[in-house]
Amino acid sequence: MYTFETKIRVRYAETDKMGYAHHSNYASYIEEARTEMMRSIGISYLEMENKGVMLPVLELQTTFLKPAFYDDVITVKTIVSEYPSIRFKLSYEIYNQKKELMSTAKTTLVFVNAETMKPMRPPTFFLEKLDQFFEVKD
Amino acid sequence: MYTFETKIRVRYAETDKMGYAHHSNYASYIEEARTEMMRSIGISYLEMENKGVMLPVLELQTTFLKPAFYDDVITVKTIVSEYPSIRFKLSYEIYNQKKELMSTAKTTLVFVNAETMKPMRPPTFFLEKLDQFFEVKD
Amino acid sequence: MYTFETKIRVRYAETDKMGYAHHSNYASYIEEARTEMMRSIGISYLEMENKGVMLPVLELQTTFLKPAFYDDVITVKTIVSEYPSIRFKLSYEIYNQKKELMSTAKTTLVFVNAETMKPMRPPTFFLEKLDQFFEVKD
Amino acid sequence: MYTFETKIRVRYAETDKMGYAHHSNYASYIEEARTEMMRSIGISYLEMENKGVMLPVLELQTTFLKPAFYDDVITVKTIVSEYPSIRFKLSYEIYNQKKELMSTAKTTLVFVNAETMKPMRPPTFFLEKLDQFFEVKD
Repeated sequence: MYTFETKIRVRYAETDKMGYAHHSNYASYIEEARTEMMRSIGISYLEMENKGVMLPVLELQTTFLKPAFYDDVITVKTIVSEYPSIRFKLSYEIYNQKKELMSTAKTTLVFVNAETMKPMRPPTFFLEKLDQFFEVKD
Repeated sequence: MYTFETKIRVRYAETDKMGYAHHSNYASYIEEARTEMMRSIGISYLEMENKGVMLPVLELQTTFLKPAFYDDVITVKTIVSEYPSIRFKLSYEIYNQKKELMSTAKTTLVFVNAETMKPMRPPTFFLEKLDQFFEVKD
Repeated sequence: MYTFETKIRVRYAETDKMGYAHHSNYASYIEEARTEMMRSIGISYLEMENKGVMLPVLELQTTFLKPAFYDDVITVKTIVSEYPSIRFKLSYEIYNQKKELMSTAKTTLVFVNAETMKPMRPPTFFLEKLDQFFEVKD
Repeated sequence: MYTFETKIRVRYAETDKMGYAHHSNYASYIEEARTEMMRSIGISYLEMENKGVMLPVLELQTTFLKPAFYDDVITVKTIVSEYPSIRFKLSYEIYNQKKELMSTAKTTLVFVNAETMKPMRPPTFFLEKLDQFFEVKD
């Protein structure tokens, strides 16, 4: 298992008339957190895409328990609890500035060969970076 | 049960470097469709909010089966299959321009009293508009 | 000269904590209006891009005189007062639901060859569609 | 005169089908940079708004000279060259990851009393923070 925390400040443009960070922004917050989680173990999503491996989102589940407000610094904790196969499942916990759990999320991503647009097993360099966090792998 | 279809054209700003409507836009597409579904039976979400009844999103689940592209006119079908109580559950089917199912979604909304910020039962005018579509109600 | 009006409904996600359509959305509103203006005279921006002609924005000027609110239907009037050369200059007037002028804008676009990424003269099919609105052309 | 630099990483959701950070995001980038410029001299825009002073954007001019790409860290330089009166004029230079000037911008903001919604002179605490950077003030 591997976890990584990313801090994101809520932009004015992201607020809505209730004064909350509108829930449509969470997909981007989570995506930013996921990218930084990868970067933290030496994987650049950009480079991976340039090498012809895409990782689109197949499923996204989000709960919105408490709101975040303008200028809040929220913390997105990305949790890798399953070793990736063709599908890469991640979960997330988002904490507001008072350290309260404000949102939980789950994503299922799929490794896709950008040339054939078909699902593929994760590239070796990707798995090697994750190996250290998983004793047993499939 | 009540269903309503809304057509939305994908904006350039909503595309991403894969050429797809980025998945972070789906929450807004679904919200627009939900608002139009309400309008179609005589409920203005704006007026309801002005009367002190809010309907924030508590849960959102989305699958992304096929992409939509720039300038595509997608169809969001909003499905009201459960009579609302404090929670209002809706599901959605999004079809691309070729009439293929490209995404499914579910939302759980909660009626909230804007003054007390506490959950509340749906207002009478809201239920009355839905009654015609449900034989048995709670 | 040619003008075309496009109606756009302000989405909840586009509002900010002041209750206004946040000014960062105007670039998209204007882009949507520009695309519809072209469609109204038989030009698909999508097809043009597929043919290798891009039309990126080089300059954007916007004034924000009055706000728009959630669920408002705003009207964006796109004004083509100059025959296009390598640069294509457009202006815009945005009216709120009360028909008050709420914003003015100007854009300078540039025709770009997608292969060479160099500026180019407008394609013939583009000019032919516009000819009817201009007595004198360069 | 006072200048402050803010670094912003381009999100995937902000890219478009050309692979560029879509120009509609620049208003948010600039707003984030402006907020951080204020924070750097001890002004919280959030607190100011809570005290009843708003600072909406009246005019925005932007040029888009070179694109930014996904995952690029861009630098937004906010330049305060004029002492604020009712209007607060700022200019901006945005540099891409190669330190090339990719965009210039200008904004005119207006101090507004949130209660009366009328323009007002800048609050004293605001001016006091800026005084150190201006020898002569009006």
